[in-house]
Amino acid sequence: MERHFDEELQALKLQLMKMSALAEAMIGEAVRALVDRDEKVIATVYEREKEVNHLQVVIDEMCLTLIALHQPAAGDLRFILGAAKTNSDLERLADQAVNIVDKTTKLLQEPPLRPFIIIPKMATLVRAMVRDSLHAFVNRDTKLAGAVLIRDDEVDALKRQITVELSELMTKDPGSVSRALALILIARNLERVGDHATNIAENSIFVVEGRDVRHHGG
Amino acid sequence: MERHFDEELQALKLQLMKMSALAEAMIGEAVRALVDRDEKVIATVYEREKEVNHLQVVIDEMCLTLIALHQPAAGDLRFILGAAKTNSDLERLADQAVNIVDKTTKLLQEPPLRPFIIIPKMATLVRAMVRDSLHAFVNRDTKLAGAVLIRDDEVDALKRQITVELSELMTKDPGSVSRALALILIARNLERVGDHATNIAENSIFVVEGRDVRHHGG
Repeated sequence: MERHFDEELQALKLQLMKMSALAEAMIGEAVRALVDRDEKVIATVYEREKEVNHLQVVIDEMCLTLIALHQPAAGDLRFILGAAKTNSDLERLADQAVNIVDKTTKLLQEPPLRPFIIIPKMATLVRAMVRDSLHAFVNRDTKLAGAVLIRDDEVDALKRQITVELSELMTKDPGSVSRALALILIARNLERVGDHATNIAENSIFVVEGRDVRHHGG
Repeated sequence: MERHFDEELQALKLQLMKMSALAEAMIGEAVRALVDRDEKVIATVYEREKEVNHLQVVIDEMCLTLIALHQPAAGDLRFILGAAKTNSDLERLADQAVNIVDKTTKLLQEPPLRPFIIIPKMATLVRAMVRDSLHAFVNRDTKLAGAVLIRDDEVDALKRQITVELSELMTKDPGSVSRALALILIARNLERVGDHATNIAENSIFVVEGRDVRHHGG
């Protein structure tokens, strides 16, 4: 009753896409909970986390089964190892949504500090990076992967900007310290989402070109 | 000229141990640079990072070669997949040393804020976690792996403590904001080292028992 290798590889890709869509949605929801001060969305994020954790186990087992049953050729083997690594990155970037809602729960107990501008911008950016990095991975699209790598600099610049602005605010207004610190840490959670997308993009180049761009020095 | 499987597996373990020792040393050095205000140690950390990056590539290729040439049985396959994941965790925890020295470089331009107590304690804890998690992984020692998982709570408690203390300081003394924020972020870098050690410990249980403890809910 063994399925054909290509069929199983396709099933693996579908599960990765499902997991990526879930993780990306969680990031969007976490930031929406913060910006719209919507506590109901927080519960959704915690619910989805369980689903992501389950998918991670399923995908790892699919990778193991694919290798054990089909002894794939070098290129496919590289893809499956890349898939297992991408799987870890997706699970960990979804964890960042949980980190964000953990802080949001506390933030909603106090009045908002100032209008949200940079955090929603960062969220939009890193969500697109997640989407594109996964797309690059499953479609072995190195051009798209390269485009993801470049966008990480934008994310870093926004993180630096919000850190400077909120540090200034903390210095001027001691009453802002706990909220400003929470927002700085949320910006860093989003930065980490971008880092994971970058890892996935690097995995995809490694799979296709058989060369390692993770330490390309730029 | 193909080497025996067991010999290559042993070589893989040796490389992982080498990488782990390097990464752990980097964490120690990064915190020493901060505490002793020693700029020379900062350069060492950046140097070692290159070595870790090189080792990461070598280890991934060893994993691929082992699978491709030897078509290992299910248990060994699980170990090799776990090794590839552990490899990523080691590289990323070494990155935290780099994050720490990046901030230390700026901190050394200003007078120290207060004596360091919690950060060296966190560093000692997470370094031991790295050492033990790797030991648990290569020796398939699930008891030791379980002990690592428990210690992560201590790291979290110390991180919370330093965050509270430094938030209070920022509120009272606006002149402390930039330095206190840097130290809060360094404590989080150390927390992430502990998270990676936890991942490695979880990998090792997954390899040995074939069950997934990553989402064991505690």
